[in-house]
Amino acid sequence: MLYADYNGSSPMLNEVKDYLRLRMQSNIFANPNAIHSLGQKINSAINESRKTLAQYCGCDPYQIIFNSGASEGITQILSSILNEAREDQKIIITSPIEHSVVLNILEHYEKVKGFKIIYTNVDLHGQVDLNHLRELISEYKCAIVCVMAVNNETGVFQPYQEIASLCKEVSVPYFCDTTQLIGKVPFNFNESQLDYAVCSGHKLGALPGSGFMIIKDRTQLKPLIFGSSQEGGQRGGTQNYLGIETLAIAMKEHFNSYSLINNLEQEKLLFEKNMKINFPEVQIIGEDHPRLPGTTLIGLAGIHGQAVQIELEAQDIFVTTSSACTDNNPETSKVLKAMGVNEDIGRSVIRISLSPSCLKEDYSKLSKALGQAYLKLKKIDAFGY
Amino acid sequence: MLYADYNGSSPMLNEVKDYLRLRMQSNIFANPNAIHSLGQKINSAINESRKTLAQYCGCDPYQIIFNSGASEGITQILSSILNEAREDQKIIITSPIEHSVVLNILEHYEKVKGFKIIYTNVDLHGQVDLNHLRELISEYKCAIVCVMAVNNETGVFQPYQEIASLCKEVSVPYFCDTTQLIGKVPFNFNESQLDYAVCSGHKLGALPGSGFMIIKDRTQLKPLIFGSSQEGGQRGGTQNYLGIETLAIAMKEHFNSYSLINNLEQEKLLFEKNMKINFPEVQIIGEDHPRLPGTTLIGLAGIHGQAVQIELEAQDIFVTTSSACTDNNPETSKVLKAMGVNEDIGRSVIRISLSPSCLKEDYSKLSKALGQAYLKLKKIDAFGY
Repeated sequence: MLYADYNGSSPMLNEVKDYLRLRMQSNIFANPNAIHSLGQKINSAINESRKTLAQYCGCDPYQIIFNSGASEGITQILSSILNEAREDQKIIITSPIEHSVVLNILEHYEKVKGFKIIYTNVDLHGQVDLNHLRELISEYKCAIVCVMAVNNETGVFQPYQEIASLCKEVSVPYFCDTTQLIGKVPFNFNESQLDYAVCSGHKLGALPGSGFMIIKDRTQLKPLIFGSSQEGGQRGGTQNYLGIETLAIAMKEHFNSYSLINNLEQEKLLFEKNMKINFPEVQIIGEDHPRLPGTTLIGLAGIHGQAVQIELEAQDIFVTTSSACTDNNPETSKVLKAMGVNEDIGRSVIRISLSPSCLKEDYSKLSKALGQAYLKLKKIDAFGY
Repeated sequence: MLYADYNGSSPMLNEVKDYLRLRMQSNIFANPNAIHSLGQKINSAINESRKTLAQYCGCDPYQIIFNSGASEGITQILSSILNEAREDQKIIITSPIEHSVVLNILEHYEKVKGFKIIYTNVDLHGQVDLNHLRELISEYKCAIVCVMAVNNETGVFQPYQEIASLCKEVSVPYFCDTTQLIGKVPFNFNESQLDYAVCSGHKLGALPGSGFMIIKDRTQLKPLIFGSSQEGGQRGGTQNYLGIETLAIAMKEHFNSYSLINNLEQEKLLFEKNMKINFPEVQIIGEDHPRLPGTTLIGLAGIHGQAVQIELEAQDIFVTTSSACTDNNPETSKVLKAMGVNEDIGRSVIRISLSPSCLKEDYSKLSKALGQAYLKLKKIDAFGY
């Protein structure tokens, strides 16, 4: 099996599996808020995990708040900011290529609370137009700027550090969706000047249902899920301590494999080059910009992406046609539409996303299988199907 | 080790451990929303788990919404109801013995949204006064009635089915916190006439960070965590599929062990009887009402509960002084205060909570250790400490 959907979700890391196997033998299971030593041991483990994550994410342990994942983090951060917006600042500046979670929340605030959303332009290759964003920020008094760090479909890096500086200059809160960034490339919260970051455990190969936020100034955050004093009163509910422990294990592994990223990137570029040599009409979406190592969004006009996905699956290779959350829609994704990608290419794309643990042979296998799929499907297409 | 804090959290069930060990060998890890067969397999497993839980909880699979646990469920349900309350109905009827999550949310609505909270009386033995509640319901036009099914500290059952009938008569939404009920005793959502129920995986011995709500009429529910179309659009975020799978495994085990409940209850009553014979001044809180099998809240005036807890821990027995969430507070708990329990007893209590898997020997061990602790601490007390 070749799993090539790491942007959708990462399979559980072997180190996490090993940890859980041992952990299940320990019999240390209790409520981390209990007064007895079992509870206190678990509470200590939570705080050790917090320290580990802080170390690998370049922040203070106190800035980390554990939760159930990025969707929860995004909802809590955005609603904390938007609920406090002044009446004369009910404007949101964002991009049309944000994840559907972000866009759905912002549209909710538009519909229900009277906010106005202004979208920044995105270039043909999937990057937010920084000059346009600069103009918008100086033109509108906005409550928030909301631009992701990396696009989940194209893998294109957004200029988030420059946006953070821009926002700092005019004292506007900046929310950067870091869901696809953390764990995939080195990340330093403090150096990046971000106000907020979010992370989902299942993207890291930790237990699904785990996650955390990093919050520069915790006083700005309001609880979303109520509870007692867990997470300093900012996230109620008995802590998902096993999830938290695996977050630290997984993040450590990612940190250690950052040295393999360049290699992954080189193998990817070679794969893309070969595909273009063999199929000159192939398009690699976003290739003019720096992209996540391991992510390729590739299309061949006239061929249906879903058909390619099925052909690959017959060879035990698992890819998607866009992001997992919009995957069932056979149309061109919103992200590609915003980039001005035409329907013919838009419907043809598949997303390949590998991790640094993948091998040179994986790209060879992909290359061969994708080539065969294209040849087969082009032939069918030529018969007028 | 004798773990006697099942009301705080249940250790992971052996069946859940066995399941996870096998599950980790399967390599089926992916985003359940992905189009490929790995994603679809996981999505099917989620829906199979939903069916299993529905079967054991007496509801329709469609009424189950997975989330991160009871605190999230409580927050989502209460805010869905209270945000829709009419201006002339901004009254909440609740009890003073609710879990701190519930009380904290209600107090938030009091402070921020101008609701008025009216508390029903509670009798000396920890049960909500149904007659008083009836009066309140007929006197006030309220937005919600909010009374738990079982108190987490005393284990005392509340008359939740009667309250459900009362509320139905006057068409008032009833929120019943079922966190301590589900999995501990047979539960049938539809037969109980409840509108809402909540459950935390960690109370069942499933993975922490998992949970679900049961919602009679899903159209009444608003999303708390935004996302895409997961859980019918009512709970965003990539599903905690491992957590969900373990919920079904754990619930099946609890269902199968309901036959052991009577035995647990008999052993508990025998233990309590022996404690009262040996220490006539001992008090069993709530003993005049039906209580959760396996739950004993026991106090001996003049002795500090925390000291007892430490003495027991020295013998590898783990109990708490009240609920885990308020455990660090050495004062009489809010629940006991509301019941009119005096400070001398209130500060002395420890909560013992066992599960049907516990053995006769466990109560013998407890009896012996608790007796020794009382003798020792009484002696110290006699010296004026």
